[in-house]
Amino acid sequence: MKNERLIYLPLGGAGEIGMNAYVYGYGKPGKERFILVDIGVTFPDMDTTPGVDLIFPDMTWLEDNADRLEAIFITHAHEDHIGAVGHTFNKFQTPIYTRKFTGAIARRKLSEHGIGADAVTIMGAWPETVSVGPFEVGFMPVSHSIPEASGMVIDTPKGRIVHTGDFKLDETPGLGEPFDETAWSAIAAGGVKALVCDSTNIFSPEAGRSESSVGPAIEELVASCSGMVVATTFASNIARVRTLANAGVAAGRSIVLLGRAMDRMVSAGIEAGVVTDFPPTISADDARELPRENLMLLVTGSQGERRAASAQLSRGKYRGLKVRDGDTFLFSSKTIPGNENGVARIINAYSEMGVDVIDDYAGRYHVSGHANGPDLARVHQIMQPEMIIPMHGEHRHLRTHMKMANANGFASIIAPNGAMVDLSGSEPEIVEYVDASRIYIDGNKHIGATDGIVRDRIRMALNGIVVVGVIIDEDDDITGDAWAEVKGLAETGKSNGPLVEEIEDAVNDLLSRAKRRVISDDDAIEEAVRRAVRHVSNEQIGKKPEVIVLISRMVAQ
Amino acid sequence: MKNERLIYLPLGGAGEIGMNAYVYGYGKPGKERFILVDIGVTFPDMDTTPGVDLIFPDMTWLEDNADRLEAIFITHAHEDHIGAVGHTFNKFQTPIYTRKFTGAIARRKLSEHGIGADAVTIMGAWPETVSVGPFEVGFMPVSHSIPEASGMVIDTPKGRIVHTGDFKLDETPGLGEPFDETAWSAIAAGGVKALVCDSTNIFSPEAGRSESSVGPAIEELVASCSGMVVATTFASNIARVRTLANAGVAAGRSIVLLGRAMDRMVSAGIEAGVVTDFPPTISADDARELPRENLMLLVTGSQGERRAASAQLSRGKYRGLKVRDGDTFLFSSKTIPGNENGVARIINAYSEMGVDVIDDYAGRYHVSGHANGPDLARVHQIMQPEMIIPMHGEHRHLRTHMKMANANGFASIIAPNGAMVDLSGSEPEIVEYVDASRIYIDGNKHIGATDGIVRDRIRMALNGIVVVGVIIDEDDDITGDAWAEVKGLAETGKSNGPLVEEIEDAVNDLLSRAKRRVISDDDAIEEAVRRAVRHVSNEQIGKKPEVIVLISRMVAQ
Repeated sequence: MKNERLIYLPLGGAGEIGMNAYVYGYGKPGKERFILVDIGVTFPDMDTTPGVDLIFPDMTWLEDNADRLEAIFITHAHEDHIGAVGHTFNKFQTPIYTRKFTGAIARRKLSEHGIGADAVTIMGAWPETVSVGPFEVGFMPVSHSIPEASGMVIDTPKGRIVHTGDFKLDETPGLGEPFDETAWSAIAAGGVKALVCDSTNIFSPEAGRSESSVGPAIEELVASCSGMVVATTFASNIARVRTLANAGVAAGRSIVLLGRAMDRMVSAGIEAGVVTDFPPTISADDARELPRENLMLLVTGSQGERRAASAQLSRGKYRGLKVRDGDTFLFSSKTIPGNENGVARIINAYSEMGVDVIDDYAGRYHVSGHANGPDLARVHQIMQPEMIIPMHGEHRHLRTHMKMANANGFASIIAPNGAMVDLSGSEPEIVEYVDASRIYIDGNKHIGATDGIVRDRIRMALNGIVVVGVIIDEDDDITGDAWAEVKGLAETGKSNGPLVEEIEDAVNDLLSRAKRRVISDDDAIEEAVRRAVRHVSNEQIGKKPEVIVLISRMVAQ
Repeated sequence: MKNERLIYLPLGGAGEIGMNAYVYGYGKPGKERFILVDIGVTFPDMDTTPGVDLIFPDMTWLEDNADRLEAIFITHAHEDHIGAVGHTFNKFQTPIYTRKFTGAIARRKLSEHGIGADAVTIMGAWPETVSVGPFEVGFMPVSHSIPEASGMVIDTPKGRIVHTGDFKLDETPGLGEPFDETAWSAIAAGGVKALVCDSTNIFSPEAGRSESSVGPAIEELVASCSGMVVATTFASNIARVRTLANAGVAAGRSIVLLGRAMDRMVSAGIEAGVVTDFPPTISADDARELPRENLMLLVTGSQGERRAASAQLSRGKYRGLKVRDGDTFLFSSKTIPGNENGVARIINAYSEMGVDVIDDYAGRYHVSGHANGPDLARVHQIMQPEMIIPMHGEHRHLRTHMKMANANGFASIIAPNGAMVDLSGSEPEIVEYVDASRIYIDGNKHIGATDGIVRDRIRMALNGIVVVGVIIDEDDDITGDAWAEVKGLAETGKSNGPLVEEIEDAVNDLLSRAKRRVISDDDAIEEAVRRAVRHVSNEQIGKKPEVIVLISRMVAQ
């Protein structure tokens, strides 16, 4: 064991909430054998990643060391933990271990990339373990907002690591495995080297509430409604979907699942045996024949996603079903920061139709899937680890979590993406930084976050664009007049004439005075034209647009 | 009075939170004389208005009837009520009435457009009134989050209108006029025809807290800090700025105001006499000479604005001052929905520097300036109006406010922007819809929300752009090869060759096969090229870009 070390390296998920990917390694420096825990995605936004389809961690470092990777473990089937499995599996070709429900979702994703079901090995819960290289690894059931969520128990020659995954302390989750303090204490009993711990709700000052606490409130609400009831939550939160469905049934309503993810998740849950008592549902076609007061629709789109069922219903109809005056729409969910405007758009659209929208203002109809501040402190105490490494949070979450750990006497450190931490000693220590950037899926291409492509899109969105065409003959004489087109800019300028004409005049004037050595040099023409265009545009409309110059040199034929 | 009517027409602020502009009219239909209450702006975002500088209501309808406008009244100096005064005054040339502090801000804005101070007439508070056409109008002091905020008391031949403006019920606001139920009851005593009422906080279920409740908490926090303290709030909330400054002084700290708005607002407050006891401040230059534990900076940028002092400090230094490990940053503010990502960016940047950031998680260090649900119900009861018209809210706010009014026995209606409401009868009635769109300030131009300019920017941001140049000679023959450039797109496609070459090949192939009637018609070439480019791009990179085709026709010389 001398000269060997135990390392932790987040490639995603530390310094952000999203795209989780955590590497553990053991061995001589530079020769460690690795496992990867989770391989998730994060979602683009108009502010920073317009036009991008999906974002995942740049795994170049791990790809360069692919021969040292023993296995991939996936804690649960949320997109920020599993979403990139189909996009990256072929680069590693190592076994993927999951529990049953997560495996069902992983196999669907892999099959979309032509990868067979045998890429995934299904495991049972702890104390079942698997040996991979220097590690002995098992899935520790935790309560969260999706079936069979798990932490990882990772035994290493330097001691036991408990990687919590996403979790909360719910003794009555309604569906799935309750928090079992005795089991957790048993796992901790032999000593824990490092607790690598979810930080999402570190700022929530009260202990979290149980999933079972929302059932009665939802049942009461649905019973009080007169028109059709439509409710949305994350489809993967099958416990909640079932609670909603049961409330509908109790109120004498037939249940309709709308949106692809709703169908997919509920059927995966039934297939994996994690839900055995889901009430009967009817199809949208059958629903159209029933009186609306006998219907409850469970729909996708709790985050205001433009293409989801909730948004489509707010714009008209979805699969022949329409909401109207007197109906009720329930958000049994929390709006993720950044999605407020999209959610408000839907609520206002429903408001215009006369629909009563109930959102989660007072937390009556939703509880979080993550451990709050006091719950995290409790887990620290149960586990009594040598050190606590905060993960799954923005920098502010990690920092506050570290301070809590320190205050309670535990060694801790902030390790953002790319920070390789040596866990071997009594205190964690950052020993190296590796590149941990982001990859964008854009159409069918992978592009780098630093390629400048997205930066150009943002600039065009902010500044508009001017295109100028210039033709130069074989004698380096300008042929005819330059001509321009604009997009995303006001059509007329200060002079009240068309902006394109002002631009063309300025460019032609420039070219007529240009020295021969400028005309003979494409880069020089381009730069001169660009400056002239930005100058005249700024004068005319007060904006400095992006400029593309198309230069065509005629050749003697 | 027969055949004459009293109308209410929101041109902005009803169906949104922002750009308030409310018209009241009295007279024969089509001949009413008008007053305008408020003339505000709203702020652009990357999702819907990239590159836009500022947004205000399209006042075309009022401009077409400018000869019927008697006066403009401005309730208070928040940007969403006063921001467009400089941009639109010249169109109306009618008197502007404000109270003293609001007037100081209005005059600054007008002077930036070369308009003299005499455009604004300063009025005292109710019971002072002014006669304008058929109206007798006075400013009713209300508590809000800026000095001298006011509602309007508008006496008309059909009875009294109370237009609340933005308000809360604060009996101990610390600075400025407290809520005075006796005064409000006196205004209501003769009967109120219509209460036109703020709806912002209709969803807040508890009665609002007083501004004075945050003072002790802030004082306690500042006293407990060891390094430098930096605090941010809206600069216009002079009461809060003073509370923060006093807490600093009590802790033995010198106060520095940073950010232009901070200086401007505090000096306007002193000038208008609304704050007489602001503690002494020191300059940034002097602050650099003092130990950091003796400093408290009050900075702009509570909403994460990229150019404000808070953001600049988070990226390095501002006016020679730097934050560092051990300092404390306090958000004495609430994040407005949509600004979450910007605020989080700053908090994480401070976290990386080792600064403790205190935000308003538990509402200890901030209270809202708007009346909550129970406060609104209380005002309904005090005013006992014939009807209640909800304003200052998105559709969902207006609808919920209307339902509250109805439930308490008051006639009410949802009147979004552009809905002209006849208030003459016992129930409000929408009699006409006028166009109430938005105008964007973009550089130095005003562009319409429906001009397609911003839509083109969004498309370029989502799809990237391809520019193709084609030269056609005088005989309608294609001269040379077409050539292309791309921006905001991956450089190589599926074929691993440059995307531009794939595009050029596809276009040249198309042109070589094109019929003469296509080549002779610019629109036909453009459409054919556009389709070919989108097709090959979709094949190569999975995206359908925007396309600009530059066609140059050579003429015989």
